[in-house]
Amino acid sequence: MAVRGGQNMGQDMKQDSAEILECVRRRCDEWIASLKSPNIDKIYSSIKSGKMLRSKLILAILESSSVDFAKDFRGDSKANSKKANSKKANSKVDSAQGLSKDSSILDCAISLCAIIELIQCASLLHDDVIDEAHTRRGVPSVNASFGDKNAIMLGDVLYSRAYFYLADFPQAIAKSVSNAVCALSRGEIDDVLYSRDFQPSLEVYYKILEDKTASLIASSAESSAILAGLDSAKYYEYGKNLGLAFQIVDDVLDITQDEATLGKPNMNDLREGKSTLPYILLYCELDSHKKEEFLAHFYARDSVAIEWFRNAFCEQNTIQKCQNIAKDFITKALNAIQDERNATLEQIATSMIERSF
Amino acid sequence: MAVRGGQNMGQDMKQDSAEILECVRRRCDEWIASLKSPNIDKIYSSIKSGKMLRSKLILAILESSSVDFAKDFRGDSKANSKKANSKKANSKVDSAQGLSKDSSILDCAISLCAIIELIQCASLLHDDVIDEAHTRRGVPSVNASFGDKNAIMLGDVLYSRAYFYLADFPQAIAKSVSNAVCALSRGEIDDVLYSRDFQPSLEVYYKILEDKTASLIASSAESSAILAGLDSAKYYEYGKNLGLAFQIVDDVLDITQDEATLGKPNMNDLREGKSTLPYILLYCELDSHKKEEFLAHFYARDSVAIEWFRNAFCEQNTIQKCQNIAKDFITKALNAIQDERNATLEQIATSMIERSF
Repeated sequence: MAVRGGQNMGQDMKQDSAEILECVRRRCDEWIASLKSPNIDKIYSSIKSGKMLRSKLILAILESSSVDFAKDFRGDSKANSKKANSKKANSKVDSAQGLSKDSSILDCAISLCAIIELIQCASLLHDDVIDEAHTRRGVPSVNASFGDKNAIMLGDVLYSRAYFYLADFPQAIAKSVSNAVCALSRGEIDDVLYSRDFQPSLEVYYKILEDKTASLIASSAESSAILAGLDSAKYYEYGKNLGLAFQIVDDVLDITQDEATLGKPNMNDLREGKSTLPYILLYCELDSHKKEEFLAHFYARDSVAIEWFRNAFCEQNTIQKCQNIAKDFITKALNAIQDERNATLEQIATSMIERSF
Repeated sequence: MAVRGGQNMGQDMKQDSAEILECVRRRCDEWIASLKSPNIDKIYSSIKSGKMLRSKLILAILESSSVDFAKDFRGDSKANSKKANSKKANSKVDSAQGLSKDSSILDCAISLCAIIELIQCASLLHDDVIDEAHTRRGVPSVNASFGDKNAIMLGDVLYSRAYFYLADFPQAIAKSVSNAVCALSRGEIDDVLYSRDFQPSLEVYYKILEDKTASLIASSAESSAILAGLDSAKYYEYGKNLGLAFQIVDDVLDITQDEATLGKPNMNDLREGKSTLPYILLYCELDSHKKEEFLAHFYARDSVAIEWFRNAFCEQNTIQKCQNIAKDFITKALNAIQDERNATLEQIATSMIERSF
């Protein structure tokens, strides 16, 4: 925001952003409510909203490209949002550069965010079934509350709803997003397969990371840049590296934070047998005797193993090394957009390293 | 076909159709192979192809509208298919009526069929997880062979792959298909919910049927009609009623056929506690004393129950009544397209009643 104004302007926009994110949540709710299924409404309403990182990226990119965007919101946010929403059914974004005349820029931004949030939510619903996760964002997961069957099907509902509205956007965006969802599922299949044994390859780890986490973040940034008429390749690169850093930080937090902070049990990756970066780095640095010990604990997954890994990470300074790798990805992300002068994106990237949940 | 030629012409086209269906299967395989994931290839190759009813509808509608379609295939099917395929990445169907100049009609038809078959396959993968089905089309289901996790994720891969290629088609088709997938998942959620208790309402039954089975068949017919520049509403109506008849026949076959013919265990709906048409019709015709007996057997789901239901269906002539209802839907389907003179669609509808698996 700093690129477009002083301190007050920045504060204004921060408040606006929170309101726009609220509009995104409302649009998701409206799209689901339009299915007129009390069963779907009941299950969907149990889901707690997340940090909406992908929406924040989309908005930050669109904001930087168009003064109209902010004006559009300040002018008459509620009336505008309502009006735009009622026009939604007939509106179509048909230019790769901009937006059609009957859709406001803000309205399109909100829809794009809602599409990505529904997709993200759908993927988490299926992830939680696969990981047999009981909690998500500090509340019981849908599979825990309503069973695997409902979690799988609600995921399918959210995906298809997202694709329905995605058809209003330019083909390049529809292709980017559907490709990302495909990568995401491919990453999950590989992840499940490699969870059987300890997987020590950094190359495999990064490939899964790129598929599972980075692809949708990269696609969100790319799609927003396409809408804004910016150089989408730069933003894709930014999003990809941000996504890689994001997941590495997540892998570290699983070890360093407690359950209350995480909103789910800690040392969860070990319990699920997931070979994340800290474990791979540690393993690579051990001698063959210690490697055997590592594997015995990795497969035991008990409280003794947790203690052993905590000590080993400490001795080898593994956490710091992981953080440095995450920082390198953040640097790559920042380099990708260095000529774009988007202070919000820069701020999102730098604060990623410091996040604690 | 009879509308366009005599006996020989019909036979020619029948052979052509089998070859085109083979092209559809090949296109699906190519799209999945392009993901370059050995894990996905391994699981996907274990799936046995189905009857491809939806593809047959799509082809029958496109054939009736354009002489070029048949010529296109006869001319040089393999070279053409290959050439068209290599152009695929850049081709885009951008007219609601016809097809863009750089894509052959046949090529688009094959892609539309492949999209629908991938979606159908994805929905069955998730259905089988939900129903805990061990077999599908006479072979072990993916969830039985590779576990629920892989079945869920492969379903997501196939869905997203289908949407990726759907973005090449006109918006009306993308909306129709994504809406159908949404209806399909909504129907499955309702179906799961109502499987807890016996569900005696015909209205609820037909709503679930329309969502679960009819929506994608209707959307296939509608999408093909949009591509062909025909009156898509008529074809939607045809597909919807055909789909309703199809599922009722399926519900009947679950009772009347043996495992070898079905490719899965019979009386399966009773075992899963599904309130299908035969059970609802029977229940509605019983007195209150017999209704209690019905419910006791319905919940017992044992071999005594199976015998009791077989006898009751026989006494009340339930199977014949269900077949008559299916015939009524077929009549509605035929009425919807009576002015369209499409002999293949008429033949598909009339033979639906006589199918035994």
